Amino acid sequence: MTTEPNTSAPCASGEGGSVVISVDAMGGDRGPAVVVAGMAESAMKNPEIRFVVHGDESQLGRLISRRKELVGRCDIRHAEGVVKMDDKPSQIVRKGSDTSMWSALESVRAGEAGAAVSCGNTGALMALSMLRLRKLPGVNRPAIACLWPSQNSGGFNVMLDVGADIRADASDLLKYALMGASYARNGLDIPDPRIGLLNVGTEEHKGRAELKHANDLIAAAAEAGHFRYVGFVEGGDLPSARVDVIVTDGFTGNIALKTGEGTAKLVGEFLRQAFANSILSKFAALLAMTSLKRLQKRIDPRRVNGGIFLGLNGTVVKSHGSADATGVSAAIKLAFQLTKSGFQDRLAARVAQSAATLPLGTESGEATS
Amino acid sequence: MTTEPNTSAPCASGEGGSVVISVDAMGGDRGPAVVVAGMAESAMKNPEIRFVVHGDESQLGRLISRRKELVGRCDIRHAEGVVKMDDKPSQIVRKGSDTSMWSALESVRAGEAGAAVSCGNTGALMALSMLRLRKLPGVNRPAIACLWPSQNSGGFNVMLDVGADIRADASDLLKYALMGASYARNGLDIPDPRIGLLNVGTEEHKGRAELKHANDLIAAAAEAGHFRYVGFVEGGDLPSARVDVIVTDGFTGNIALKTGEGTAKLVGEFLRQAFANSILSKFAALLAMTSLKRLQKRIDPRRVNGGIFLGLNGTVVKSHGSADATGVSAAIKLAFQLTKSGFQDRLAARVAQSAATLPLGTESGEATS
Repeated sequence: MTTEPNTSAPCASGEGGSVVISVDAMGGDRGPAVVVAGMAESAMKNPEIRFVVHGDESQLGRLISRRKELVGRCDIRHAEGVVKMDDKPSQIVRKGSDTSMWSALESVRAGEAGAAVSCGNTGALMALSMLRLRKLPGVNRPAIACLWPSQNSGGFNVMLDVGADIRADASDLLKYALMGASYARNGLDIPDPRIGLLNVGTEEHKGRAELKHANDLIAAAAEAGHFRYVGFVEGGDLPSARVDVIVTDGFTGNIALKTGEGTAKLVGEFLRQAFANSILSKFAALLAMTSLKRLQKRIDPRRVNGGIFLGLNGTVVKSHGSADATGVSAAIKLAFQLTKSGFQDRLAARVAQSAATLPLGTESGEATS
Repeated sequence: MTTEPNTSAPCASGEGGSVVISVDAMGGDRGPAVVVAGMAESAMKNPEIRFVVHGDESQLGRLISRRKELVGRCDIRHAEGVVKMDDKPSQIVRKGSDTSMWSALESVRAGEAGAAVSCGNTGALMALSMLRLRKLPGVNRPAIACLWPSQNSGGFNVMLDVGADIRADASDLLKYALMGASYARNGLDIPDPRIGLLNVGTEEHKGRAELKHANDLIAAAAEAGHFRYVGFVEGGDLPSARVDVIVTDGFTGNIALKTGEGTAKLVGEFLRQAFANSILSKFAALLAMTSLKRLQKRIDPRRVNGGIFLGLNGTVVKSHGSADATGVSAAIKLAFQLTKSGFQDRLAARVAQSAATLPLGTESGEATS
């Protein structure tokens, strides 16, 4: 059927082999000017990129015409409505077909863009993505994956789910492992990623029943899934170099993500206060400026901007609602890289393969998908 | 019955109104010399403190005789066995009656000490505490509370449960709120603590069913429990100044605690690397030394050493297994302060009062306690 979501064009091409990214310009906290500025930053660094931009046509036309990097590289799609941060996902699913978010997903569904980027309401974006792109065959619960600053040589670990669904059974956690491994290979260039399952201890007898079951399932799938399974990991391992991908349910993952962000912010604030304490410490701070900036860069959330939705028929990157131009540009870069690598097809093939080879009885959670 | 755990002597007195703390000297990673050094640090700062010390008599006798602050202020109780870090709690419960940990709890049970301190195996310490001290009437699941560096004026928030039990229903979460409020009043001198319930969002419709139920129960208990309820809080609020006590189940709390510790450690490591980068940055670090030490002090885990077990007939403080003398001394200080304030009796009264005034049907989880 021609109305089925497109899964065969992971690298939607514009003119001359370029990669097309669909951008929802309206949903962020800072409005479309910041989103367009982020697009311009990306376009300047990356001659291969083109955009389909969704939102208020006249406003976007004005903003884009002022950026010479963008002229001739954007298709504008007018959308009247905007999903607000406090809109309920259920309402958007029923009445949101005129919004820029909906329109941005349609470009991916129709195959004219390789991935969609939005700074909008996360819950609404996930609900609309599930409605319009639908779940991949073999996936019961899609997940949101984020990047986590770490001591690994690449500088980041992957964690999922960080909030798509507050529940996850053993079979879901196995899919998260497969999808996370695929993301680490294509988004982070880690050919043979190490997967860990988040728990309250590393001993095999610890934790909830579904975690023990998932532990067995993931261990059994490692060879076919081309990843290494390191077993249970703890909260302290999230930024460690002993793992590349951390698998957990969306409740725990969301708490861990926000706890990590909050702690980094607190330490930064304490650091600022420590240096503001006296004349001498202010002078030291001046001398240490380069070092402090280097630190700030390593933990700058804008560098890792972009949660990615996994388990759908299409790639969706969620940027922070409060992202500035640099943050938006980072999210676009991630969308570009994944599109270019053919990530979506590889992920789908990996999940399908696992569904076909897994022992019977482990897929019961997927009867509805 | 005279063999019942003692709950009426929260401030076990030695000579001249002193406060007696029971110390398990054997279970830590660094051995009894470090524990005795920590006791000496406490004794030097605090003339009111006395100890009952449990472990190898001849070894402890030698160590204590070398510390003039401790001479005449310690009763040594010989215990042959030591609980090791990898011992299974179930085995210790069956066969651990000769251990220093067991003996340390007996001193609290018998009322000769106001609180026990141990650096040993957390799981075994909780299992033995439940066996020997038993749960408080009205408490189904005891909890471990920890202190969390925060932007509050006192410098710390309380979080519980951080790992006593991986499950908690709505009624358990209510008890955690009451116990956490009591701890904040007596351990942190916050007369009117603000309680928050950890969730993945602050909107009332978010999260698991038991969280919505707990939200209602805790809100209803706020006035009688003399605390303020701020509703749901997120991971980013753990170090914030909008809350004093964060309530969660032991699975989520343990993950959050270790994530926060891991993140702080990572930022510290990045900071060290940033300053080690060049000659100039090394010089800046030298000048900034005072400021950096000030920062280190604020996030030093040794200052907040001491998870406390709540919901038992007796106060037990769990020190980090790897605590040094300063860490052990911090844990002893906490045990002293809680004993001196009459915390144990106040907590018991608070839980009993709530059990008497709560609406019917919310206490179903407690039939076994």
